[in-house]
Amino acid sequence: MQVSFTAADIIDITRPKAVRGATTETIRGLAALSVATAGDLSFLGSTKYKTQVAATRASIVLLPPDFTREPGSNQLFLLVDNPSVALARVCARIEQALWPKPAPGIHPSASIAADAKIAATATIGPLCVVESGAVVGERTHLQALVFVGRTAVIGDDCWLMPGVVVAAECEVGQRVRLQPGVVIGSDGFGYEFVSGRHEKVPQVGNVVVGDDVEIGANSTIDRARFSRTSIGEGTKIDNLVQVAHNVVIGRHCLLCSQVGISGSTTLEDYVVLGGQAGVAGHLTVGKGAKAGGKAGITTDVAAGGFVIGMPAMPYLLERRIVVLQQRLPDLFKRVDALEAQLRDTEKTSS
Amino acid sequence: MQVSFTAADIIDITRPKAVRGATTETIRGLAALSVATAGDLSFLGSTKYKTQVAATRASIVLLPPDFTREPGSNQLFLLVDNPSVALARVCARIEQALWPKPAPGIHPSASIAADAKIAATATIGPLCVVESGAVVGERTHLQALVFVGRTAVIGDDCWLMPGVVVAAECEVGQRVRLQPGVVIGSDGFGYEFVSGRHEKVPQVGNVVVGDDVEIGANSTIDRARFSRTSIGEGTKIDNLVQVAHNVVIGRHCLLCSQVGISGSTTLEDYVVLGGQAGVAGHLTVGKGAKAGGKAGITTDVAAGGFVIGMPAMPYLLERRIVVLQQRLPDLFKRVDALEAQLRDTEKTSS
Amino acid sequence: MQVSFTAADIIDITRPKAVRGATTETIRGLAALSVATAGDLSFLGSTKYKTQVAATRASIVLLPPDFTREPGSNQLFLLVDNPSVALARVCARIEQALWPKPAPGIHPSASIAADAKIAATATIGPLCVVESGAVVGERTHLQALVFVGRTAVIGDDCWLMPGVVVAAECEVGQRVRLQPGVVIGSDGFGYEFVSGRHEKVPQVGNVVVGDDVEIGANSTIDRARFSRTSIGEGTKIDNLVQVAHNVVIGRHCLLCSQVGISGSTTLEDYVVLGGQAGVAGHLTVGKGAKAGGKAGITTDVAAGGFVIGMPAMPYLLERRIVVLQQRLPDLFKRVDALEAQLRDTEKTSS
Repeated sequence: MQVSFTAADIIDITRPKAVRGATTETIRGLAALSVATAGDLSFLGSTKYKTQVAATRASIVLLPPDFTREPGSNQLFLLVDNPSVALARVCARIEQALWPKPAPGIHPSASIAADAKIAATATIGPLCVVESGAVVGERTHLQALVFVGRTAVIGDDCWLMPGVVVAAECEVGQRVRLQPGVVIGSDGFGYEFVSGRHEKVPQVGNVVVGDDVEIGANSTIDRARFSRTSIGEGTKIDNLVQVAHNVVIGRHCLLCSQVGISGSTTLEDYVVLGGQAGVAGHLTVGKGAKAGGKAGITTDVAAGGFVIGMPAMPYLLERRIVVLQQRLPDLFKRVDALEAQLRDTEKTSS
Repeated sequence: MQVSFTAADIIDITRPKAVRGATTETIRGLAALSVATAGDLSFLGSTKYKTQVAATRASIVLLPPDFTREPGSNQLFLLVDNPSVALARVCARIEQALWPKPAPGIHPSASIAADAKIAATATIGPLCVVESGAVVGERTHLQALVFVGRTAVIGDDCWLMPGVVVAAECEVGQRVRLQPGVVIGSDGFGYEFVSGRHEKVPQVGNVVVGDDVEIGANSTIDRARFSRTSIGEGTKIDNLVQVAHNVVIGRHCLLCSQVGISGSTTLEDYVVLGGQAGVAGHLTVGKGAKAGGKAGITTDVAAGGFVIGMPAMPYLLERRIVVLQQRLPDLFKRVDALEAQLRDTEKTSS
Repeated sequence: MQVSFTAADIIDITRPKAVRGATTETIRGLAALSVATAGDLSFLGSTKYKTQVAATRASIVLLPPDFTREPGSNQLFLLVDNPSVALARVCARIEQALWPKPAPGIHPSASIAADAKIAATATIGPLCVVESGAVVGERTHLQALVFVGRTAVIGDDCWLMPGVVVAAECEVGQRVRLQPGVVIGSDGFGYEFVSGRHEKVPQVGNVVVGDDVEIGANSTIDRARFSRTSIGEGTKIDNLVQVAHNVVIGRHCLLCSQVGISGSTTLEDYVVLGGQAGVAGHLTVGKGAKAGGKAGITTDVAAGGFVIGMPAMPYLLERRIVVLQQRLPDLFKRVDALEAQLRDTEKTSS
């Protein structure tokens, strides 16, 4: 990442409410307060790190509007509504350099079916495969080694990174980002046990991915047994997540890494699942519900609920149990003592 | 999925024992009872949903033979031995349209070693790589972007989906389906700790996959340290599953998503492991044993056993512990009360 | 794996301290003591299997120097300092046959940017993509279907197996082995919640992978929000592991399969994490600390600590709790009995 911003550039991007101090340094990097050096931009993202501002050597620091301390020499403080958001704006500018918009066109090494419909503004990178009847939307970028199956539809302004597979008949909305190795439309895991063997239940549905969805590297979304597996608008899915057949994920959910959702389960809007959490099949997790990391959800969760543990329980109950578990050795001793006392009492009284 | 069946077509496919009512609708989709509309085929897969049959708007419904209610107007009931199996037969017909049999031949963009043996009836899709001495059987389909390593052997009637990797010297049986991104034959995770460093133990065995095995998207099967890692006939493995080196998996097992099996462990026939379960190394899980989701198996499991929890325990014991854990806050109060009472008793008696 | 060694070859490779017996067999395979037959090489890797040596039919057996028993007829015992290390040396020889050094050069089907710098001794296999400004070091092997992004740097003597993705600007050291499907440099999972939507926080850092690192199949390493995600020299990572953005992993760590490390966490040198363990974000796991399989680490772990469970606790405490949990049914009965006794006592005394 090669970065070069003047102080004026940073002010232009972040539009601070107030400016304190000045610097002649060119910003060549971003760094946390404690490790920043001259030429770095830093920020106060959490009040937890407030005391680090005094000692930071960053040339420019993004700070909340109520920050009172004065900058050091050759140091510029920018007071902004939300330092994290301001930093994100700077990063967005850097991102444009990291991922320059590719020129439209189809790389000669790509294998494109004659009847695939590729928008004139789309970019199909090297060694991609687009099968018969598939559609690739305006300004969408298939980076390299991407597979789009028969009659699959990819919307506008999408980015499919290297190694992505979108299997036949699946549908991807607008502005969707699929990280490397994502698989959309693998078969659901369905078998009937007949005469001592698992006979495959054909999986003939598809996957429908809504607008503004992002899916992390090597995550897998199975096609439905029939009808569709669906992921709602704005939902963000981390790496190595499994979404089984006929799952319905609402809008604006967050699924952290290595989460697994079993078949036919519904997540309503704004659900948040911590890393390595799992949800059993045929359940409903209500709107805005949250689950901690490694939670194992085995029953429906009410809207707004917060669960943790395996099996998942309400957060406060589970925390209490965890604390009491650590006092079990003591509890056993106390019961031993009570029994001994009672034996003594009986002896004495008999 | 474009579907078009007449009522006569559906009767022909499902061969019902009895027919009730009639419909003039063409079947254009499959749907669950509660959401089906005119033109849909539906089914009663579980008695749990029996009350939904009365209100369903599906044009054709597959029902068990003892179902007594009459159909609505322009509605056809088909009484079959097993509605799920009957539906699977319809799906199998749809599947033929979803995945039409590709024409045999080698796509010009594939990279095939001169001495690879590709059956004349096999289909090698675009941008596949088949290395020296590898064998691809009759009617087998390498869809696209598939890698088959040196002297690897793929049997007849297999389907390797986009992005599959079968590394050197591994062997895959007949009628095996490898979903996108499956890796067969990655190195086992083996090191010797020498002078403060982890020195690699070469992994020179292979992987042998039996007939009728299916492996889910992005799952990984490591090659053996020496000899073989093996997966028995008819076993089905879901997405994102890890099978370590020298594991022996029996016949007709089911491994749900995100399961992990550590090195040199044996699963006997008909073992079923729930999602995100893990098995430690050098263990034996006996024939027909089952483990619940997220189980952490740390000792051998007897044939027919059913375990759950971490560390995994017999199902009934674990269930009981989970219930009692939720009563721990109460138990602590009860012991507090007992101690207080006893103190009082002593005071009184002294 | 085709193997053919004479007894003299094996002596030459393993350099035994003493030799007992003799064999005329050619070694054609490696096998565990209990299953070995004539023509096999075997070894005593653990004293646990000592009694199996008497009955083994292996033609050559690698044994510790203090082993006293005599070989059978046509059987050769080689006494070596460490039978496992001696076996590894034999395996290393076999590995050279399994993975012959490829000839340098660029396969004509690869897509290489004009300004990529590929060392003359490197091998770029079929259907690889190397983008603009990327660097591939001496003797490094991109096997097939590998993607190396813009200005990424791959060091000398690396091996990137089929389907590996190294995204733009990431850096890989010397002698690094990336198993099939590894993704280096996917976006970190970072969003700001603004007006009911998750707005992407651009991820503009990179990933830096140290020398002698190995990463297992389909594992994913996210690029940093800014600055770098880093993996220290000599660290070995198993399959399907997730390393989030801005994680810092020290030198010579071992991460077993399906481990997940959340954002900005630091693992110091020599940390070992068991399979399916997870570490929450912004934590430090101290030097040489260990976690058992499925551990859920939610607080810092001191150097040399050993934790297990969810939430992770010191090993001995967690083991004790697990034992006492199994005695909970009994404990509840004992408290019931105490209460009953006390009621009786009171009745009697009143």
